[in-house]
Amino acid sequence: MIILIQCKDKVGLVAAISGLMAKKGINIISMREYVDTEANRFFARLATEQYTDAPGLGAELRTVLPVDAIVEVSPEHEKKIIVLATKEYHCLSDILIRNHFKTLGAQVQCVIGNHDTLEDICKKFGIPFLLVSHVNKSKEKFESELMAVIKQYPHDYLVLAKFMRILSPKFVEAFPMRIVNIHHSFLPAFAGAQPYKQAHQRGVKIIGATAHFVTNDLDEGPIIEQQVIPVNHTYTISDMIKAGKEIEKAVLAKALNMLFEDRVFVYNNKTVVFE
Amino acid sequence: MIILIQCKDKVGLVAAISGLMAKKGINIISMREYVDTEANRFFARLATEQYTDAPGLGAELRTVLPVDAIVEVSPEHEKKIIVLATKEYHCLSDILIRNHFKTLGAQVQCVIGNHDTLEDICKKFGIPFLLVSHVNKSKEKFESELMAVIKQYPHDYLVLAKFMRILSPKFVEAFPMRIVNIHHSFLPAFAGAQPYKQAHQRGVKIIGATAHFVTNDLDEGPIIEQQVIPVNHTYTISDMIKAGKEIEKAVLAKALNMLFEDRVFVYNNKTVVFE
Amino acid sequence: MIILIQCKDKVGLVAAISGLMAKKGINIISMREYVDTEANRFFARLATEQYTDAPGLGAELRTVLPVDAIVEVSPEHEKKIIVLATKEYHCLSDILIRNHFKTLGAQVQCVIGNHDTLEDICKKFGIPFLLVSHVNKSKEKFESELMAVIKQYPHDYLVLAKFMRILSPKFVEAFPMRIVNIHHSFLPAFAGAQPYKQAHQRGVKIIGATAHFVTNDLDEGPIIEQQVIPVNHTYTISDMIKAGKEIEKAVLAKALNMLFEDRVFVYNNKTVVFE
Amino acid sequence: MIILIQCKDKVGLVAAISGLMAKKGINIISMREYVDTEANRFFARLATEQYTDAPGLGAELRTVLPVDAIVEVSPEHEKKIIVLATKEYHCLSDILIRNHFKTLGAQVQCVIGNHDTLEDICKKFGIPFLLVSHVNKSKEKFESELMAVIKQYPHDYLVLAKFMRILSPKFVEAFPMRIVNIHHSFLPAFAGAQPYKQAHQRGVKIIGATAHFVTNDLDEGPIIEQQVIPVNHTYTISDMIKAGKEIEKAVLAKALNMLFEDRVFVYNNKTVVFE
Repeated sequence: MIILIQCKDKVGLVAAISGLMAKKGINIISMREYVDTEANRFFARLATEQYTDAPGLGAELRTVLPVDAIVEVSPEHEKKIIVLATKEYHCLSDILIRNHFKTLGAQVQCVIGNHDTLEDICKKFGIPFLLVSHVNKSKEKFESELMAVIKQYPHDYLVLAKFMRILSPKFVEAFPMRIVNIHHSFLPAFAGAQPYKQAHQRGVKIIGATAHFVTNDLDEGPIIEQQVIPVNHTYTISDMIKAGKEIEKAVLAKALNMLFEDRVFVYNNKTVVFE
Repeated sequence: MIILIQCKDKVGLVAAISGLMAKKGINIISMREYVDTEANRFFARLATEQYTDAPGLGAELRTVLPVDAIVEVSPEHEKKIIVLATKEYHCLSDILIRNHFKTLGAQVQCVIGNHDTLEDICKKFGIPFLLVSHVNKSKEKFESELMAVIKQYPHDYLVLAKFMRILSPKFVEAFPMRIVNIHHSFLPAFAGAQPYKQAHQRGVKIIGATAHFVTNDLDEGPIIEQQVIPVNHTYTISDMIKAGKEIEKAVLAKALNMLFEDRVFVYNNKTVVFE
Repeated sequence: MIILIQCKDKVGLVAAISGLMAKKGINIISMREYVDTEANRFFARLATEQYTDAPGLGAELRTVLPVDAIVEVSPEHEKKIIVLATKEYHCLSDILIRNHFKTLGAQVQCVIGNHDTLEDICKKFGIPFLLVSHVNKSKEKFESELMAVIKQYPHDYLVLAKFMRILSPKFVEAFPMRIVNIHHSFLPAFAGAQPYKQAHQRGVKIIGATAHFVTNDLDEGPIIEQQVIPVNHTYTISDMIKAGKEIEKAVLAKALNMLFEDRVFVYNNKTVVFE
Repeated sequence: MIILIQCKDKVGLVAAISGLMAKKGINIISMREYVDTEANRFFARLATEQYTDAPGLGAELRTVLPVDAIVEVSPEHEKKIIVLATKEYHCLSDILIRNHFKTLGAQVQCVIGNHDTLEDICKKFGIPFLLVSHVNKSKEKFESELMAVIKQYPHDYLVLAKFMRILSPKFVEAFPMRIVNIHHSFLPAFAGAQPYKQAHQRGVKIIGATAHFVTNDLDEGPIIEQQVIPVNHTYTISDMIKAGKEIEKAVLAKALNMLFEDRVFVYNNKTVVFE
């Protein structure tokens, strides 16, 4: 069982939580907590043995916590996800492979593409591929079609695996902190379009990738994971793109791993990640 | 106040510890704990507000912990260290600079050299330099002279900052887990002499450095910190040595920082480091 | 066209080579050279425009080079490879995905497994999978069966993608510097079996992976690529294995990329890699 | 002798250069070249044996190169530098230590501070410290005083080792590509003031430092070197600043090393660094 707690900090929270667990005879397998002293905010993640009455435990926990406490008590289970992609195969394929060998920590329900380029690879793995083209459509129409498909499949998260369309505020608001994107730069450097071109022009010596939650500020959502690799003057834009794909794939995989194991909290447009 | 606890694991330890703190009204500023489930061993580090009766608190803590518990309650204070060096300046100078600007987290009491090469730099910073030459002396004689000097200065730790003499079991046993060494390789690769020569000959693509406690198995003591840097075929042994010095300096600095902030536990010839 | 040259060093080699190219009107697109001054050895890689008479050019080059010169002139072409694997999917899948999307830089001819675990994933990509079990067979018999399969498919290289059998000297000698292995440690640390278990026991703070040519000294062949990741006391052996797989996959991919682009020279049991 | 060449690219340049060297019997110890194919620009660095007529050789080289060629032929010699600093000691001390032990690759002529904080450490090393306060002065007045001091000491480069004043266009133009700055962020992320505060607020998972030439676009000059380190949610701004100092020191040291060994070319607001 995984228990996530976020609330205002005060003296004795750890004692209160662990005391309740001890009283109920629930064995804590691991416990992580963190206090943001500036924001006066307390975060805890407990992995415990299974317990028959999860909702009841949540309610009991709330009685010993500050009134603003956000408590999630859930049996450990595999998340369900929908992946959105465009033409690039590297992130999607990595997800499909892990899904196939049951090491993703989530189950891919379907893949939605705005091009049909990646239909073939999805079919190989027996994953439904739905084409929702954006061509000759208003964003509103495009997104209502996306939404219609999404509604047909259960989903804890939407994963944008190099999905090259910008989503509208209305769409994003329907999935608060439930859409994860991989951006091909070390944000906040090179937000927006063509980050490798920007990086090449600026002559940077390091490039990176950023996995983040999607919010309505483009490329400004809470960052989950970032990694970088060194480059040098010999890298053309193509070389950067090629090297970048490797890091994009790795960063998205790491972020999803953290997310699917319930290790990520969000507040103040930032994340707390209990690795 | 820093409290370090190490004991056999059992259910309710965190509750017991934090409960006692709450009862006594001591505010926990930060708490880190870790359970090695294989070894069934519990580790905790608490930073709390100051408390008037530190020894009394330690005794009270022991009453709520397993009988094997190792409990250290100590006011936060700067450690006192003695540095041993030979001819290379880079690690020692880094320590002297930090000591001078009071960011080392410890106070250098004196430097002992088996050559006089580094006397000058110590004098610049007003740090006593003691020459204890090993030339034409038995190891026993050499070490008894070292010991005579060491006894004159207070010391929590001995830091071997590129001290190129191997210490005898008798000497090492006098300072259990109190001697820190910087080894110029990514241990356990290239233990022993001339690691860069070994690395060059083997054609590795990465070199590193390791800070560890000194035990009587040469280069086999508990590892505190390791870092690496990429190298390639163009690196001569000299290039590796030059690049290696940078990483040696950084690794030793990081390890000392962890140690001086009471963030390092040792058991089973390994360390738990609460960064 | 790619030209690889390895010979004794002497004054004027670059002038001789580039002069010949200029004389024949062949445009050098890129040229890399390196001199190992200790070994007095010269290495060069030229990428040039295509040229109709490749063998003739090789012969002409030899006339301006020392007598020991090894010269390879070859049109740029995709290598053909055979992959050997056992049960772990991560390295093989990564190769199959790149092969499928034609970004591997080589063509996978077939996969040989000593278990049938990975047959399914090969079939998905239409790659022949050949089961050659080692069970109840002498090494000699096992390898003669391997050899029989290998002979049926063209191959520039054999890639051991987590192939967990040790090959005999006789087998290895049949493919000098043509077998690439991924070892799951930062060699030379933790050669041999169960490197993660060894790493865990030693309490290292960094783990890594090594891609190398296979020779008859186990895990002692020329290293092509190494990468590492930080770990800490919270990592169980399982965690190390999991994290290690990511780096194994990345290291093998990078090594193969260098190899398939003709960027790797071998001498003195080391590699020169022109990245 | 070090020879640096930058010119328009054309077929046969390497042959022309190495041919001339062979003809004159000058042994090339190492040669690096690079062609930016997009910009059609050729760069070469040669290390050769000494030669009596350096200016004459430069003139001869120009006869075999395109008319726009920039050719520098210079005996290997230690550069002379002036360091400007404010209050932070870490970068300056690192430079002073290397200077003292003659491993900087340059000779510090003097240090100019706009505060007197660092006077003491300079004196310890016998380096002239000149206080030029900016308080109650126009930028024009301040810079004319700086200039007056600078004129008294020979200098190949000015090094801004955490010098916290922005220099005017007029001042910068007097030292084109001769002023090196260390910026405490991974540019172009977090240009301008208080980069760590910006980084903390944005919740990045990596922070870095950038050494660059100073131009009149603030923090937009050609980047020489960048390095990064991982951070996480537990880092306060102070922790970031503390961790950042280590990387600032390392990045500036690496950049200066490249510069003082004549390994850095500039064009199109980018650098070519022959490591």
